[in-house]
Amino acid sequence: MSFEFNLLKQGEGSERLGLIKTARGDIETPAFMPVGTLATVKAMTPEELTGLGAKIILGNTYHLYLRPGHELIRELGGLHKFMNWDKPILTDSGGFQVFSLGKLRKISEEGVEFRSHLDGSKHFLTPEKAIEIQLALGSDIMMVLDECTPYPATREYTEDSLSLTTRWARRCKDVPRGEANALFGIVQGGMFPDLRKRSAGEIVDIGFDGYAVGGLSVGEETQVMYDMLDSCVDLLPEDSPRYLMGVGTPENLVECVARGVDIFDCVMPTRNARNGSLFTKRGKLAIKNLCYRDDPLPPEEGCGCYTCSNYSRAYLRHLYMSREILSSRLNTIHNLYYYIHLMEDMRRAISEGNFDKFRKEFHENME
Amino acid sequence: MSFEFNLLKQGEGSERLGLIKTARGDIETPAFMPVGTLATVKAMTPEELTGLGAKIILGNTYHLYLRPGHELIRELGGLHKFMNWDKPILTDSGGFQVFSLGKLRKISEEGVEFRSHLDGSKHFLTPEKAIEIQLALGSDIMMVLDECTPYPATREYTEDSLSLTTRWARRCKDVPRGEANALFGIVQGGMFPDLRKRSAGEIVDIGFDGYAVGGLSVGEETQVMYDMLDSCVDLLPEDSPRYLMGVGTPENLVECVARGVDIFDCVMPTRNARNGSLFTKRGKLAIKNLCYRDDPLPPEEGCGCYTCSNYSRAYLRHLYMSREILSSRLNTIHNLYYYIHLMEDMRRAISEGNFDKFRKEFHENME
Repeated sequence: MSFEFNLLKQGEGSERLGLIKTARGDIETPAFMPVGTLATVKAMTPEELTGLGAKIILGNTYHLYLRPGHELIRELGGLHKFMNWDKPILTDSGGFQVFSLGKLRKISEEGVEFRSHLDGSKHFLTPEKAIEIQLALGSDIMMVLDECTPYPATREYTEDSLSLTTRWARRCKDVPRGEANALFGIVQGGMFPDLRKRSAGEIVDIGFDGYAVGGLSVGEETQVMYDMLDSCVDLLPEDSPRYLMGVGTPENLVECVARGVDIFDCVMPTRNARNGSLFTKRGKLAIKNLCYRDDPLPPEEGCGCYTCSNYSRAYLRHLYMSREILSSRLNTIHNLYYYIHLMEDMRRAISEGNFDKFRKEFHENME
Repeated sequence: MSFEFNLLKQGEGSERLGLIKTARGDIETPAFMPVGTLATVKAMTPEELTGLGAKIILGNTYHLYLRPGHELIRELGGLHKFMNWDKPILTDSGGFQVFSLGKLRKISEEGVEFRSHLDGSKHFLTPEKAIEIQLALGSDIMMVLDECTPYPATREYTEDSLSLTTRWARRCKDVPRGEANALFGIVQGGMFPDLRKRSAGEIVDIGFDGYAVGGLSVGEETQVMYDMLDSCVDLLPEDSPRYLMGVGTPENLVECVARGVDIFDCVMPTRNARNGSLFTKRGKLAIKNLCYRDDPLPPEEGCGCYTCSNYSRAYLRHLYMSREILSSRLNTIHNLYYYIHLMEDMRRAISEGNFDKFRKEFHENME
């Protein structure tokens, strides 16, 4: 396999410094992956993402399967060429979106039947199909199809669900794939620590290039999420990357790095940006607030991003209130810069052996 | 005055090559000004505009007066600083937008009362106020307040209207302004060649740094627009720049350069871009058309713009159908590149003495 993970340093706690190697480039971890749902990280060009320091992005299989279709993307040379991004892409399996459809889907041993949220057309997603789609896209890191256990769920439902996820994981692994297509397993188990452990054990037994923890940040209390992570992360092999799916706030990232997570993805920096919410070291800033009407300061003083280097809160508020496209662009640049540099700061802290100090100061700065 | 116009070359026909000098930079003419209505050329950053070759942009006084307000922009250091654009800005007077409000405005000798299209609030715009607002914005080239004669209009209405425009032009000129704030007069006269001549004579008599032809492209046949231009352009001083307001299609630009116009502005390249309409040497391309679904070609083969260099029609169609922000960005880049490079091509043709050949081939290429 051309996929490799090197654990560069284990911190004093669970935090760790690593390096993922892929055929399309390396990723220092802990790392954050911007979300590029529909073959575009919303409002950004690939060059801008590279300029912000992004080394890998996430593509959503469910969305790309429906629009423009994985076969079309394959014909046109794959997702990388289609969207002009030559660095690694991790694709999810489509499972999370399908399970979010609620009444529009029906689950069985074989797979999951669902109706498109776009036109109501009927589709059937199996573990094999999920891999086939991701191979058509040309994914560098593919995810197994799992059932994202709903929240809340009974113990019985959660047990059945994690077992299904295990069986589906095995089927995904059995699909032939290329050397350049890494495959990650996913740990489920709901909000039951022992079921999280059981799922982790089963998934690790099958053996994957990396391991994700799924089914968190689905409505539970933050502390419960941390506890669930704690319950299973030690069971994941030290020499494989750990990916916490769909998480989270800056606070979450710091706390989950502290618990040994290596990679993250979340729509929060990009979606919040479009809604006028900017991340800063002191917390979120709602740019529409009247107090910024004539504020000549940048969103965050001292921030080195393009937006903060060139524009005032007053201008950003004006763009937001006027619904200008540039509003989404400038806010997204700032938020992605914030997220990506937060990861960089954490890597430096781990490297220098003062992650605990970093973590403490990070929380103290938040208002 | 720091404003200067040098006529570099008079072609064999009416076409001409010129150079406008301002305190904030030079503009080779014939030139096209991208429209930045609300302190942003929609979807673009200033650096992108510079990269596309834009040397000057237009700001809309009416829109900026209402939102975020000219006083706020003045407090924040002027429009250039506010929007991070350090090259020249031409501002219109707000008249065109006010007169477009129809029943929401009431005209008198003193000025024009109107209601905001945003919140219905009442405002009164006079010639003096129009200049005051443009000075607050820090405009490099200001426009006098004129009445954009409606179309169609009777001869009587048009005569009264052009006389009012003349009286208002005189009042605008009487407002003290800085050395760096050039002021252009505007020729009206509706669709009556002799009234166009009369207006041109009166406006030139007052004396301005440059002369605009207004009230065209308001619904009349294209040939009528060309005839109106022909009727008055020779009366404008050879050593002053000529600006045709709000025009137009690529064909219009070529035909009006042939008639001696130096600068243009139009929302067409930016607005059409957002609506998925791309300009090419062979005509317009509607990117949503099904035939582009799997088309691996760029919008225009041989085009050197960022969009054509990196993306396929299939990808652009996908972005457009998915309503992605990147769709507006990539389409705008292409269309502005097309417009700005069309002007560059015309300047080269004039410079090389083969504008007639260029003009003929340009029209032949259009399908």
